[in-house]
Amino acid sequence: MSLIVQKFGGSSVADATKLRRVAGIITDTYKAGNNVIVVVSAQGDTTDDLIEKAKEINPNPSKREMDMLLSTGEQISASLLAMTIENMGFPVISLTGWQCGVHTDSNYSASRIKKVKAERLNAELDKKRIVIVTGFQGINKYDDITTLGRGGSDTSAVALAAACHADLCEIYTDVDGVYTTDPRIVPEAKKLDEITFDEMLELASLGANVLHNRSVEMAKKYNVNLCVRSSITPNVEGTVVKEVVKMETMVVRGVAKDNDVARISLCNIEDTPGKAFRIFSLLAKHNINVDIILQSIGREGTKDISFTTSEGNLQQVLDICEANKEIIGYGDISYNTNVSKVSIVGAGMVSNAGVAAKMFEALYDANINIHMIGTSEIKVSVLIDQGMENKAVKAIHDKFELGN
Amino acid sequence: MSLIVQKFGGSSVADATKLRRVAGIITDTYKAGNNVIVVVSAQGDTTDDLIEKAKEINPNPSKREMDMLLSTGEQISASLLAMTIENMGFPVISLTGWQCGVHTDSNYSASRIKKVKAERLNAELDKKRIVIVTGFQGINKYDDITTLGRGGSDTSAVALAAACHADLCEIYTDVDGVYTTDPRIVPEAKKLDEITFDEMLELASLGANVLHNRSVEMAKKYNVNLCVRSSITPNVEGTVVKEVVKMETMVVRGVAKDNDVARISLCNIEDTPGKAFRIFSLLAKHNINVDIILQSIGREGTKDISFTTSEGNLQQVLDICEANKEIIGYGDISYNTNVSKVSIVGAGMVSNAGVAAKMFEALYDANINIHMIGTSEIKVSVLIDQGMENKAVKAIHDKFELGN
Repeated sequence: MSLIVQKFGGSSVADATKLRRVAGIITDTYKAGNNVIVVVSAQGDTTDDLIEKAKEINPNPSKREMDMLLSTGEQISASLLAMTIENMGFPVISLTGWQCGVHTDSNYSASRIKKVKAERLNAELDKKRIVIVTGFQGINKYDDITTLGRGGSDTSAVALAAACHADLCEIYTDVDGVYTTDPRIVPEAKKLDEITFDEMLELASLGANVLHNRSVEMAKKYNVNLCVRSSITPNVEGTVVKEVVKMETMVVRGVAKDNDVARISLCNIEDTPGKAFRIFSLLAKHNINVDIILQSIGREGTKDISFTTSEGNLQQVLDICEANKEIIGYGDISYNTNVSKVSIVGAGMVSNAGVAAKMFEALYDANINIHMIGTSEIKVSVLIDQGMENKAVKAIHDKFELGN
Repeated sequence: MSLIVQKFGGSSVADATKLRRVAGIITDTYKAGNNVIVVVSAQGDTTDDLIEKAKEINPNPSKREMDMLLSTGEQISASLLAMTIENMGFPVISLTGWQCGVHTDSNYSASRIKKVKAERLNAELDKKRIVIVTGFQGINKYDDITTLGRGGSDTSAVALAAACHADLCEIYTDVDGVYTTDPRIVPEAKKLDEITFDEMLELASLGANVLHNRSVEMAKKYNVNLCVRSSITPNVEGTVVKEVVKMETMVVRGVAKDNDVARISLCNIEDTPGKAFRIFSLLAKHNINVDIILQSIGREGTKDISFTTSEGNLQQVLDICEANKEIIGYGDISYNTNVSKVSIVGAGMVSNAGVAAKMFEALYDANINIHMIGTSEIKVSVLIDQGMENKAVKAIHDKFELGN
């Protein structure tokens, strides 16, 4: 007998028909003799609808109250899913984040899970119940409800899998696995049977939209067996994410794009040590993740620092820079949201010379201009004009022959 | 400095405009130097919408999961109201039933409050925050969410007022107080400045729809200063509900009607002792409240027992009777939902001969047939054909000259 954690996203539980399909997958797993913990997101557009309601009365509500509001979305879908399973005659119970002991820090709207106290969960599993858990949320030391931020349900699922020593954590999405690139853009895109945690991490953070990257980090840390598969075609084997995958000739594993990018440039910064540190520690203090960072020589002994972040952070970044203009000591600030990021990812890349060059060649052949370049051990990202990203993805995918 | 508990129903917080109006009442009270605890119901039709969603996937969901589902309604309105008050620049926090220590029994969907652990509430009040609490809900000993049943937010408000020793508990509704009868039916209906707990109890349980009767019981028990007033015209003095009101000549205080009535008759019951006990203890075991009870002589040494309950209980009552037909030992069962109950209420009634007779005379004059009669120390109820209830209320109201 195994313990399996299954996570279903908002589109998989959007209405009664979809709830019944999902309940079928769950009860099949249960009937096969497994213990099952299910993590659900809010139905369809619930979260967006709640955000809209809030903005109507307060353009800038506190994050504490937003979490109070948004956490209801998962509570609704969890109880509805439990009722669906009840109706099929199986023992089931729904639990909120606080009921199943998901303890987080107090960074409302983007909390991190600190620990999972699994007593209640284990007690319910001992009663042979299917346990439905609200994803995306937990409780902090003040007994206040917190949320993990968008996509946090993946993280919830992995955290519960780690805490309960689950044999497998299945993330059900509307795609049947991880592809070499988005099949809607490049029809020849190939599904990967396996991928490493590190590769998945880069793909997730690069906008592949399959797995929330914090969930992959956590799965890597606690060595959770993770698998991505489709709730529409549950019989199709998905993609297994694990520490080491079998040797393959493929160096580049996938091509990803991300349109949710803003480029910010601080120009004419005095060329003294500690400037970059000052900027990015200020941003880190406000929990703003930056991605590609580029430093270049400016005019007359000054330097320019450019970096990218998600568009949602733009205004806050501008405000922070403005408020600390004296401390940072820059001349001008400029930004551009009309850009896209395209990236290649692959664990084999680090030991293969010429991979980046091959990518740049593909873009050159396609007549696409590169604004910024960022690299890590297993990825190369470029910033290009928005509108060119699909052409770029296709050109790179072809160049590396990933469809074969 | 006083502590005031204010309760706002679902229609008072139904949209952004209404939330702002309610927030105005709350912050005016706060600005006047009071501590304020606010209890809210779910917005408008939220609860009905959620019930519909549940029924779509499971015609008979467990009450435990229904409570999990329905409790989200108040959590949404509480957080939205908090955001509205935040936007006006006042310190505020929203709390769920479990966060503010409302402990109940485990009778899901109709739980009773056992105690309120007010530590968190008091701590927030000490911080000079306006505290918004989700009405209608609590937590049981298993850490599961429970609801108090329809109208339970009134009870929540009174319970919090009692636990925190509030100076006043204001129930805001869409009427500006308690009237001698429904002003929509009888335009001459008069607003009462004061009413006793007992009179209010009878009016509430008789369908006056102003205050949930459990809240009145609790207010009476803990001697909570209770007052009913309008959220639309907050400047109009409402009706104060208290233990003793000043002597008045008016014997009959109000006329109420209730269309949510089903009459059930068990016929040809063997005429031996203990039959009535058996029936009503069975129903009590299933938490079914019955109202008027009538026993009459049947054919050939048998008897008939008739009683009324709310229409929602009808099917369950029929099922229980059917399942225990042998034990109860009745011949036939019949029922009628096409009836209405009309009642007069007044603490002075018990010591005034002829009040009931005067009521029956009013109905006779109006040519309305009486099916059943029930009386208590301070009320007289009659069961009549549905459709005649407004005519009956008007006739009785006129007869007792309550509009003067």
